[in-house]
Amino acid sequence: MKKIFVVGLGPGELNQATGRALEALENSDIIVGYTVYIDLIKEHFQHKKLLSTAMKKEAERCMLAVKEAQEGQVVSMICSGDAGVYGMAGLMFEVAEAEGLLDELDIEIIPGITAACSGAAVLGAPLMHDFAVISLSDLLTPWELIEKRLEAAAFADFSICIYNPSSIKRHDYLQKACDILLKHRSPDNVAGFVQNIGREGEQGIVMDLQTLRNTKVDMFTTVFIGTSQTKNINGKMITPRGYHLSGGSNE
Amino acid sequence: MKKIFVVGLGPGELNQATGRALEALENSDIIVGYTVYIDLIKEHFQHKKLLSTAMKKEAERCMLAVKEAQEGQVVSMICSGDAGVYGMAGLMFEVAEAEGLLDELDIEIIPGITAACSGAAVLGAPLMHDFAVISLSDLLTPWELIEKRLEAAAFADFSICIYNPSSIKRHDYLQKACDILLKHRSPDNVAGFVQNIGREGEQGIVMDLQTLRNTKVDMFTTVFIGTSQTKNINGKMITPRGYHLSGGSNE
Ligand SMILES: C[S@@+](CC[C@H](N)C(=O)[O-])C[C@H]1O[C@@H](n2cnc3c(N)ncnc32)[C@H](O)[C@@H]1O
Ligand SMILES: C[S@@+](CC[C@H](N)C(=O)[O-])C[C@H]1O[C@@H](n2cnc3c(N)ncnc32)[C@H](O)[C@@H]1O
Repeated sequence: MKKIFVVGLGPGELNQATGRALEALENSDIIVGYTVYIDLIKEHFQHKKLLSTAMKKEAERCMLAVKEAQEGQVVSMICSGDAGVYGMAGLMFEVAEAEGLLDELDIEIIPGITAACSGAAVLGAPLMHDFAVISLSDLLTPWELIEKRLEAAAFADFSICIYNPSSIKRHDYLQKACDILLKHRSPDNVAGFVQNIGREGEQGIVMDLQTLRNTKVDMFTTVFIGTSQTKNINGKMITPRGYHLSGGSNE
Repeated sequence: MKKIFVVGLGPGELNQATGRALEALENSDIIVGYTVYIDLIKEHFQHKKLLSTAMKKEAERCMLAVKEAQEGQVVSMICSGDAGVYGMAGLMFEVAEAEGLLDELDIEIIPGITAACSGAAVLGAPLMHDFAVISLSDLLTPWELIEKRLEAAAFADFSICIYNPSSIKRHDYLQKACDILLKHRSPDNVAGFVQNIGREGEQGIVMDLQTLRNTKVDMFTTVFIGTSQTKNINGKMITPRGYHLSGGSNE
């Protein structure tokens, strides 16, 4: 069986990858990925064939991996964060299916720490209870569906984690998103964001939803909106699970 | 500054922990955790003081960690999966605050792979698009709020990942949850679950929502319900992001 690993590397430095992810790279002949991620690993994997590809070519990147695997090479496709959260895992299956190669290819997904979890850790514990993860990118999703999801998540008092909060073309999307959330949440609902998680320049800030609405963030940012119960404790964003401090049990 | 790490170990074996998590344990004097997790690490950390505690004592476990830290020991509190997703991260801050010790304690949260991500990887790529994470445990959450969140997530066509789907007292909760989802989703909406992720006996099954409704799962199980667009491709559960296979871009 021909083998492809789709590997999530976590948010930044390689010590945020799992042992299993590094083993997969070690067991590969070829490592394929977007240039930034190849740069991240190249020092440790100089003995491998490294194929870096440009930003806007995800399906081609998968095709490249599939072709190399067909020729008998063990291939790892690397992603930042988790391979299965706005990553390459699904597309790899879709490309393999479109090429009629699903039966010949063993595609193994190796999870990594997604930005929701790594960013939450920087801010404290905003996702301790039920949460929703929503991307503001409307390149592949109608904006109406994004709005519907924001509104449903706000209404049902989820903690909300927002990926792709901004881009050059979408500089006001976070503001639009906050306006929707403000229909169901108070302006002082605790919120926050983290830039450059696990990388140089990592910075987390806790604020309220109204302030977030009036803040500009860049695309290397993950945004968090607490539930109505979330607290700002000494600058940390903490969503209680409802524990009684004298006991409680639920793990 | 006194130091506590709250460390997520990932779903099972230690090769699913990050280097950063293992470094934190290595830099600790004492490692505290529920017995099962202490057993998991004890072979590699025999040179540390290991304190295992019974299941139903989360707040006491945090108190123990806080006390040891106050005496100058570097303490790691370990959790399965991610420390910040139904884990110990938030409670540690709450206990430190209740004890008036937040200024003296440096609490560092070290993320791990949460069951949503590790389970998704076993099934294929069910969480490729927006998703909601919901626990069915009503020990600390009113069932009405759980219902409201299930309904909102079903309505807005999120992928849904369910934690704590079952317990001895709550054997019919997954069925009740599926009945709520079925108000907004078709019986053949793709669904699945994974038992014992990353552990002996790991098993993932893809099915439809109606079949899931009539299935019993145990508490070591994480359940996935796709969006209305999710496909069952050769037994893998794949949620498309809407890519065009000839190009597309969004990473
Ligand atoms: C296409 S998604 C990729 C997500 C990735 N697969 C993951 O699981 O984290 C890109 C978005 O993820 C978030 N993100 C990923 N890595 C990040 C980091 N190191 N710091 C801050 N945000 C990050 C940002 O919201 C960014 O716009
Ligand atoms: C109290 S929660 C702890 C979650 C953990 N902190 C995490 O991030 O994965 C316990 C629930 O998580 C899910 N879970 C955790 N580890 C799992 C595993 N190895 N296999 C299957 N489900 C797991 C199950 O739904 C279980 O009922």
